[in-house]
Amino acid sequence: MSILVVGSVAFDDVTSPSGSAKNILGGAATYFSLAASYFTQVRVVAVVGEDFGPEQEEVFRRHKIDTRGLEHANGKTFRWGGTYADNLNEAKTDYTDLNVFQTFQPRIPKEYADTDFLFLANIQPTLQAEVRRSMNHVRLTGCDTMNYWIKGTPKELAETLKLVNLLLINDTETKMLANETNLPRAAQKVLAMGPQALVIKHGEYGATIFFREGAFGIGRHPFRAPALPIEEVKDPTGAGDSFAGGFMGYVASQKEMNREVLKRALFYGGVMGSFAVERFGTERLQSLTREEIDARFQLFRELTHLD
Amino acid sequence: MSILVVGSVAFDDVTSPSGSAKNILGGAATYFSLAASYFTQVRVVAVVGEDFGPEQEEVFRRHKIDTRGLEHANGKTFRWGGTYADNLNEAKTDYTDLNVFQTFQPRIPKEYADTDFLFLANIQPTLQAEVRRSMNHVRLTGCDTMNYWIKGTPKELAETLKLVNLLLINDTETKMLANETNLPRAAQKVLAMGPQALVIKHGEYGATIFFREGAFGIGRHPFRAPALPIEEVKDPTGAGDSFAGGFMGYVASQKEMNREVLKRALFYGGVMGSFAVERFGTERLQSLTREEIDARFQLFRELTHLD
Repeated sequence: MSILVVGSVAFDDVTSPSGSAKNILGGAATYFSLAASYFTQVRVVAVVGEDFGPEQEEVFRRHKIDTRGLEHANGKTFRWGGTYADNLNEAKTDYTDLNVFQTFQPRIPKEYADTDFLFLANIQPTLQAEVRRSMNHVRLTGCDTMNYWIKGTPKELAETLKLVNLLLINDTETKMLANETNLPRAAQKVLAMGPQALVIKHGEYGATIFFREGAFGIGRHPFRAPALPIEEVKDPTGAGDSFAGGFMGYVASQKEMNREVLKRALFYGGVMGSFAVERFGTERLQSLTREEIDARFQLFRELTHLD
Repeated sequence: MSILVVGSVAFDDVTSPSGSAKNILGGAATYFSLAASYFTQVRVVAVVGEDFGPEQEEVFRRHKIDTRGLEHANGKTFRWGGTYADNLNEAKTDYTDLNVFQTFQPRIPKEYADTDFLFLANIQPTLQAEVRRSMNHVRLTGCDTMNYWIKGTPKELAETLKLVNLLLINDTETKMLANETNLPRAAQKVLAMGPQALVIKHGEYGATIFFREGAFGIGRHPFRAPALPIEEVKDPTGAGDSFAGGFMGYVASQKEMNREVLKRALFYGGVMGSFAVERFGTERLQSLTREEIDARFQLFRELTHLD
């Protein structure tokens, strides 16, 4: 099944304890589509500037990602610079130049109208809602957001949450959105806002999926997938978007969506996140094979399952 | 197999967002021995004051915990007061009155000489080492410590670590002990200090066991057991000691010690920690049945394992 991601494409300057990399291809839509491309056919809607050339487009093409929704605008592509100190869970933003992303208005090519799965990466909630409303064919919508929108545009975000099936955010965002510090209680509050399932990403500790009572006909018990302890974390940028790409990509690749598929999706999300951070930018995500992915899935399983 | 815990018995005053409780039985040795008592025969070495009466001793006796090593000293029992705000992972200490614990010199009754398993709860490292050296019969020694000793008595702690098989500490303590922020790398550094296995407790996210190459003949791959998302956390005090009691108690109850036993022990540790926090103090640990424990173990497994 096809999956469409709407979000940012960017150039990043990243510094971490492992070194630094300049002018590397990044952005939520990039990480998401590369990660998802190992599972299913991916389409992308994003805006890029004149500095985004054939070399960058080729990265998407090599992964058979449909770039007809990639709008080429006058000006520069979104640029972000960040530094990770010892605590790799948090980046200090050195600069954010929105550039052409500032006035981004997602336009869905008519060829994308039959898309089955939709992922709304972290953009302004009203734009997310507009995209969702314009896609009549979509069977399942996943959505990301961030503190900036939770604090700044709560009403708009509330409207968007009514339109999505799955929300994928982290612990801090969940607690902030629910205004509740107990995570399982916060999860129930978020589910009452609209989504049938909430995936909470715990960074190096894995992720938990909480279900609304009766959602997908699979009851309300949560499921938790631990992440793998990784020795080499070079660049945490894009880990969450790669997680989302693995999760949604795997779901889109399956005939049915049931509890077991969603559980496996949580593991595949963790697998793709774990690969993403091994090298700077999207380098590792560009060079994977499905065999490597499945081998890590098995390792993941062995290191977390009782006999 | 019998297990001996050496550590503190205390009276606590605890306040959390769920309420408060005064003058309740606490201390690492108390939580540990109650948790372990559901799995195996437990012996305790600790010191209490004149305020520790038959009512408190009866709590141990009801769980068939051997209290011949409980020294009754003149003065008051160790007292601790703490408050948990919204972040339940961290207590603000309101006061610490060491009282009789200040001059605690563990004395091992001769009836304990045949003990098979030993747990050195969080006390001064030199005392831990002395206890270990005096127990010739012990097959496996587990050990806890804290920031205070890691910073304050690093040489003494280094000596103790050479004498123990298992170290059970949390993420922050591991990083501080290794002087390394990457957790898997920190784990390897800690293992090089002596223990054959390191159990890192991640609080609400579960725990990971790291093995020294070739330790117990089971290779060096880590194993991670996620914790269960719990809605009702009333009082986090003693969660780590209850985890240790479940972990060590389960290991002591098994004929062999292999990878599978240690994996299951990690789950039982999480189960006992999850029960401990449901009520103030040791209330929940006092009232459990083995059936409730095994039911939660199964739930834990279902909520974290793929089919």
